[in-house]
Amino acid sequence: MKLATIKDGTRDGRLAVVSRDLTRALDAAAVARTLQGAIEDWDRAAPRLADLYAELNAGAARHAVPFAPAQCHAPLPRAYQWVDGSAYVNHVELVRKARGAEMPQSFWTDPLMYQGGSDSFIGPCDDAPFADEAWGIDFEGEVAVITGDVPLGTTADQAGAHIRLFMLVNDWSLRLLIPGELGKGFGFVQSKPATSFSPVAVTADELGAAWRDGRVHLPLVAHLNGALFGKPDAGLDMTFNFAQLIAHVAKTRELEAGSIVGSGTVSNKENGGPGRPASEGGAGYACLAEQRTIETILQGKPVTPFMRFGDRVRIEMLDARGQSIFGAIDQQVTRTA
Amino acid sequence: MKLATIKDGTRDGRLAVVSRDLTRALDAAAVARTLQGAIEDWDRAAPRLADLYAELNAGAARHAVPFAPAQCHAPLPRAYQWVDGSAYVNHVELVRKARGAEMPQSFWTDPLMYQGGSDSFIGPCDDAPFADEAWGIDFEGEVAVITGDVPLGTTADQAGAHIRLFMLVNDWSLRLLIPGELGKGFGFVQSKPATSFSPVAVTADELGAAWRDGRVHLPLVAHLNGALFGKPDAGLDMTFNFAQLIAHVAKTRELEAGSIVGSGTVSNKENGGPGRPASEGGAGYACLAEQRTIETILQGKPVTPFMRFGDRVRIEMLDARGQSIFGAIDQQVTRTA
Repeated sequence: MKLATIKDGTRDGRLAVVSRDLTRALDAAAVARTLQGAIEDWDRAAPRLADLYAELNAGAARHAVPFAPAQCHAPLPRAYQWVDGSAYVNHVELVRKARGAEMPQSFWTDPLMYQGGSDSFIGPCDDAPFADEAWGIDFEGEVAVITGDVPLGTTADQAGAHIRLFMLVNDWSLRLLIPGELGKGFGFVQSKPATSFSPVAVTADELGAAWRDGRVHLPLVAHLNGALFGKPDAGLDMTFNFAQLIAHVAKTRELEAGSIVGSGTVSNKENGGPGRPASEGGAGYACLAEQRTIETILQGKPVTPFMRFGDRVRIEMLDARGQSIFGAIDQQVTRTA
Repeated sequence: MKLATIKDGTRDGRLAVVSRDLTRALDAAAVARTLQGAIEDWDRAAPRLADLYAELNAGAARHAVPFAPAQCHAPLPRAYQWVDGSAYVNHVELVRKARGAEMPQSFWTDPLMYQGGSDSFIGPCDDAPFADEAWGIDFEGEVAVITGDVPLGTTADQAGAHIRLFMLVNDWSLRLLIPGELGKGFGFVQSKPATSFSPVAVTADELGAAWRDGRVHLPLVAHLNGALFGKPDAGLDMTFNFAQLIAHVAKTRELEAGSIVGSGTVSNKENGGPGRPASEGGAGYACLAEQRTIETILQGKPVTPFMRFGDRVRIEMLDARGQSIFGAIDQQVTRTA
């Protein structure tokens, strides 16, 4: 099933079920007021939400309304945890290569993850406000899961069973603030502003055979100002799968229901080397930094600029028939008021 | 006033007002079910909670019950944000010195902060469970504030007005997991397990004149297995005050109501040099790592061991008359089941 959170003036919005084709929505607050509430009470809520979903898809939901992604919050407008991996190690290796740094071999066996701010996310069609273009504004297209309660010490073998829902992510990044901040050694605070998520979160069955081996085997499609920028396959080159990422966090602490775990920027190798730009027929990239990295490696310096005020990015994922699974993240970069 | 969250089987517990002397508690759920709820609706809730507090202190609250810290959750049992500073730069400089590393001069002007996991905190008297003593189990005594909504771009001059409540923190740290994890460059995930907080959170007026210049000018008292370990003054050597720490985060994103901002481990210089151990009449330390660092500098290697299963740590803060302000964090280290 597909679930969305509709803006209603409250901090957590109102839960709705959305039809498979993303055309209609049905209020689900009678089952659970919020998505966080549904996740906390999943065994009770999920079958009831599934009933509403079946009704809606059958055209039998009398109170259905047109689905409007612009009225959506992030599925979880705020969360108790947002922890993001860098599971596509190819991406990490490339970025390091561009600045002449070796990547430690352990990065292929020990997941790189960071704790993100989760108190206030941005809706899928909301503006992304920044004070300064000189911060190096970039998008990052990712896949994320929402977990139930994950006990302390859960292993990768066990972790998959705790995945409840899937979403797409735009992990906004301020590239030119990152070197100084990471140089201090404590991770990201200023250089990772508020994150955006897709209009709907979906259960695993909506992904069908594309969900296997703990990975989502479909291209993540990114458009920049209307032009295709990348369509790397989220199932390829994902060194650590979602179960491994969850287990990495659970090694020393439990994860409480409603925790969001991200994949990191989707990134593909092509023909054994770095991916080629979409404009040259390659898979392209899910962030500007990777294209700039390839340019640096091939041409000695980056050519593609970071995002400017007024630029738009669109991130979505299509199923085998070309239908959007999650709806599109479609956002404009704006100057803060 | 003083506020606590009483365990009632729910994830967020039940809000109570606690008497100034920490002997009695009064259910406050009629004003706000949870502390998060009160913070989100502070202008309405605070005066009503203050009325209950006055009644309770006057001995006029008919339904008051004895206050039992062991029945307390953390004031916020889970939060949407927990971001922790290293505002006592002395501590950072010492730790680096012990391993022969220079600290960049910018650390005196640009706050070092990390985003912590906030989905599941530990109550003040709850056991702290770890799988392995070899991880280097350590406590960190800190002060923290809970904020209201802080707009994007809030400056240090403006940030103080958004502070709602104060707490003490035990920021559990796994010292021997830290070098490997920080070496990867993305901050803490595994090496900062679930954090603990004091039994009560208090408003600024409870601190009286000790709250000035954005700092809490009182000793933070730490006992290890019943012996005084340290009593560094939280108002001394705090290079960045709470307003500056909040503004650091707000530079690129808003903070939503209920965000917790920590000071980092309280640490004092003495006579211009590093602090002396409490056992030698000095101010001592608020974490084992700092004592081990001094030992390394003076004796070439650390002597004090990290915590073992069964060890207890107690962290509290007394007012000028010797009365406990926040109640004590008093926890035993245990082996995970």
